[in-house]
Amino acid sequence: MARKEIAIKEIQTIEKEETSRIPAKGKHHTHETAETMAARQRDISVSEFFAKNRHLLGFDNPRKSLLTAIKEAVDNSLDACEEAGILPEVLVEVEDLGRDRFLIIVQDNGPGIVKKQIPNIFGKLLYGSKFHRLKMSRGQQGIGISAAGMYGMLTTGKPVEITSRTHKTKPAHHFRLQIDTKKNKPEIISDRETEWDVEHGTQVAIELEGKHTHGKQSIDEYLRQTAIANPHVMIIYKEPGGETITYERTSHELPAHTQEIKPHPLGVELGVMQALLRDTRARNLAGFLQHEFSRVSQRVAEEICANAGLSPNALVSRVSHADIEKLLEGISKTKIMNPPTSCVAPIGEEQLIRGLQSVVPADFYASTTRPPAVYRGNPFIIEAAIAYGGSEQEGDAPARVLRMANRVPLLYQQGGCCAYQSVVQTNWRNYSLSQPRGSLPLGPLTIVVHMASVWVPFTSESKEAIASYPEIEEQIIKALQDCGRKLKIYLSHRRRETDEQRKHDYITTYIPHIGIGLRELLGFSEKEEQNVVQTLTGLLERHRE
Amino acid sequence: MARKEIAIKEIQTIEKEETSRIPAKGKHHTHETAETMAARQRDISVSEFFAKNRHLLGFDNPRKSLLTAIKEAVDNSLDACEEAGILPEVLVEVEDLGRDRFLIIVQDNGPGIVKKQIPNIFGKLLYGSKFHRLKMSRGQQGIGISAAGMYGMLTTGKPVEITSRTHKTKPAHHFRLQIDTKKNKPEIISDRETEWDVEHGTQVAIELEGKHTHGKQSIDEYLRQTAIANPHVMIIYKEPGGETITYERTSHELPAHTQEIKPHPLGVELGVMQALLRDTRARNLAGFLQHEFSRVSQRVAEEICANAGLSPNALVSRVSHADIEKLLEGISKTKIMNPPTSCVAPIGEEQLIRGLQSVVPADFYASTTRPPAVYRGNPFIIEAAIAYGGSEQEGDAPARVLRMANRVPLLYQQGGCCAYQSVVQTNWRNYSLSQPRGSLPLGPLTIVVHMASVWVPFTSESKEAIASYPEIEEQIIKALQDCGRKLKIYLSHRRRETDEQRKHDYITTYIPHIGIGLRELLGFSEKEEQNVVQTLTGLLERHRE
Repeated sequence: MARKEIAIKEIQTIEKEETSRIPAKGKHHTHETAETMAARQRDISVSEFFAKNRHLLGFDNPRKSLLTAIKEAVDNSLDACEEAGILPEVLVEVEDLGRDRFLIIVQDNGPGIVKKQIPNIFGKLLYGSKFHRLKMSRGQQGIGISAAGMYGMLTTGKPVEITSRTHKTKPAHHFRLQIDTKKNKPEIISDRETEWDVEHGTQVAIELEGKHTHGKQSIDEYLRQTAIANPHVMIIYKEPGGETITYERTSHELPAHTQEIKPHPLGVELGVMQALLRDTRARNLAGFLQHEFSRVSQRVAEEICANAGLSPNALVSRVSHADIEKLLEGISKTKIMNPPTSCVAPIGEEQLIRGLQSVVPADFYASTTRPPAVYRGNPFIIEAAIAYGGSEQEGDAPARVLRMANRVPLLYQQGGCCAYQSVVQTNWRNYSLSQPRGSLPLGPLTIVVHMASVWVPFTSESKEAIASYPEIEEQIIKALQDCGRKLKIYLSHRRRETDEQRKHDYITTYIPHIGIGLRELLGFSEKEEQNVVQTLTGLLERHRE
Repeated sequence: MARKEIAIKEIQTIEKEETSRIPAKGKHHTHETAETMAARQRDISVSEFFAKNRHLLGFDNPRKSLLTAIKEAVDNSLDACEEAGILPEVLVEVEDLGRDRFLIIVQDNGPGIVKKQIPNIFGKLLYGSKFHRLKMSRGQQGIGISAAGMYGMLTTGKPVEITSRTHKTKPAHHFRLQIDTKKNKPEIISDRETEWDVEHGTQVAIELEGKHTHGKQSIDEYLRQTAIANPHVMIIYKEPGGETITYERTSHELPAHTQEIKPHPLGVELGVMQALLRDTRARNLAGFLQHEFSRVSQRVAEEICANAGLSPNALVSRVSHADIEKLLEGISKTKIMNPPTSCVAPIGEEQLIRGLQSVVPADFYASTTRPPAVYRGNPFIIEAAIAYGGSEQEGDAPARVLRMANRVPLLYQQGGCCAYQSVVQTNWRNYSLSQPRGSLPLGPLTIVVHMASVWVPFTSESKEAIASYPEIEEQIIKALQDCGRKLKIYLSHRRRETDEQRKHDYITTYIPHIGIGLRELLGFSEKEEQNVVQTLTGLLERHRE
């Protein structure tokens, strides 16, 4: 601190000297012209851009960077396993190398990666198989894992190490890679065949600057929540301290297989329609509509054309700008089925509760999977779950919100997330909870919100928060209201039970006294008295049933 | 709504049918293998990426998109004018075309753009002159204006139109451009010389989907705040309604010219150092340090080498990974002057107040320009200003915060911005204001925070909020505290004045009565009575001085 201040004083002195030489206020310096400016204009590589802006990718500070790197690697492992129909088994190892440096190793039992693709997948930003298709997956941008490697390289200078094997009959390959950030291209440091006692799978090792903590926003918390959303996954986590934590799977069923779909006509923007028309292999308009979109049968294609005032036989090559406008209007007038939802797989009400039970002990659980909906042409499904009561949840604190997108827990930027905002907007007072204005409900409550979609609209490349689209908000609130209604029934039932128990206790206490009273008043024998007591108790029991 | 629900029901029926044909739970579908996955892996163009993620660039919804497009164009105009040493005169025109479509036109008197560069600047993302240099400017990414064009194209299908002229002796050029998003390359629709009655400057016209509003986060508000931060700029704004608003300049002085600097050794990360060593033309270590960094003289270079335990004559080509680690340690042990601040131009205390006065009428103004500081090797300067009182500011409401970065007002994502968070963290109760815990101070108060830097760390590509670096937060809080102290003096002075005025009024009311009393008690003549009153009043006045 002191040193900085001295340095600043030095600057100020220098500045004054410089000022006396070069007149300030920009009056005498050489001005730029269009020509001198042109000489400096050039391309910016996407990796240069993100290296300078690495906070956009979740590499803001050492603590978050460590988590983000692990998250990106685990996301990829789970995606690969599921696509290959393999129940995922993931090993996560974090080794403290001292001086704020860590080695992270993530290994899976997935299908492996063919040799030729390894350099591109790990050494190039914006490369992958998930961006161009409409299908639910954890990764979607083709940035994450190579960004993690780039961050490691920037902070420690060490290359990323990858080992991968696609089949037991084939050799395992070992690569050491760096990103050439100026060109956004992988640079292969070494590449050899290696012995590996794993039949198929991939292992990635990254050395990076980081900080290890426990508690909120930690690796532990991330893995714990991953287990909730992925009951079919087994994770073995070797902590920096040397301890091993195993998250066993609670389900042996893979999530439903999702299918790639074509875009839905209703969400398509004019510019996209223009590009599709240019690239299509179809010759006429009706064929184009059927071929390039989902939910467009011949009948629907003809209806769209009729509503647009265009001929179904119009040649695609002749479609003008004005025609496209008409086409979009035609689409908006036509009743078209919502997109197929085979592209999206929810966790499922039962699985979600099972996952939640395994990590949040509580008295009551409820969950809801909403019917599919659509935003900007993208199908999505919202799920919500709640866990209420139990000794581990605080009674007076605000509820805890667990946010998930395509089965990945989101740990940062809660305030900016549509899921959190929707929880706050829901009126929990309707469901027997107290809730300060504009805040979370209070009580021993954990709330889970999950969005499954072919394209989750994240608020930044670091994929930490879901952007607020009205369609998404509406679905989340409806899902929460449904859970809320179930909670209310449980709570009022519990309250009624308590009330009745109290009444029952009260009456049973007095029945013997009634017996005694009757004996004294009417001269009942002891047996008659017992009969009366039994009859009254029986009546009470029957009444309660 | 009703239609959507019907559609959803239809899906559910279909889904059931499909389910009966294809067994669910993904047990019988064809699984992916490493080979089938490899076949789908490919490059993602940066424009495809941002077209799909356009909310990252500020094109979330029609209202914000209209503002963002104008902002990007105005930023570019002001940057170009200032670099060429021209007092900026910017014309902003917004025309309502009906059906949620707008035509925006932004025209400047800048240096113009050479013909060859026009397509790249407006038709390619990540292209420009500002990214690679360390110098303060409004634009820094090479994304903004081409993204605005891309958004226009996506929503209306219309190309961007650009007219530019570099000198009165040269012809003006007119281009119509689109982005080929698959390749991230400009597509020239037409290109011709044209008559233009402007000697030099650039005009860009974009047709886009938008929504026009007044009030907060509107174009009006953006231009108003631009005038505060840029008193040397004249803006003529033709509203959609047809009215014209002129923001006259209140200063005829251009901001101090900023100079490009080299990186400072202290902020450089290992990976960056590695890249610099690979690309340098210097042969030995001492030469490398002097040539590639700012504030490294021969003496400092030798000191760094000594602290690193390396020879100043070591050949750059022979520097190993371990040597780089030593070099960084050597740098951290060496006292190096802070980066030069000729690369950053603050608005200035006086100018800031003048700008604020022109748009926020108030009773009291104060401003502070902090000495330069550094985060991650980047020099920056924080300025703050406040306007207190006045009939237009609400007395009981939370203070208004105006946030600015490199003279550009930031209108969105207030909660996520370091400037706002620092205002909340400042303890305003120290300065005679009331402030609820964790909130803005209350009172008739406007607070301006400005960050000037060679690289403002925005939280997203849309440049709406400043990321929280501790060094930045510290400077903002110090600047606010300084303004707060000035405010406290003003407020206590005002309170003392009020108190004394009250006392004075009280005494002057009674002096005549004292005179009357003395006359009655001591039998003073009327003249003697007047003498006493005058003497007492005189005494009172002298006492007050």
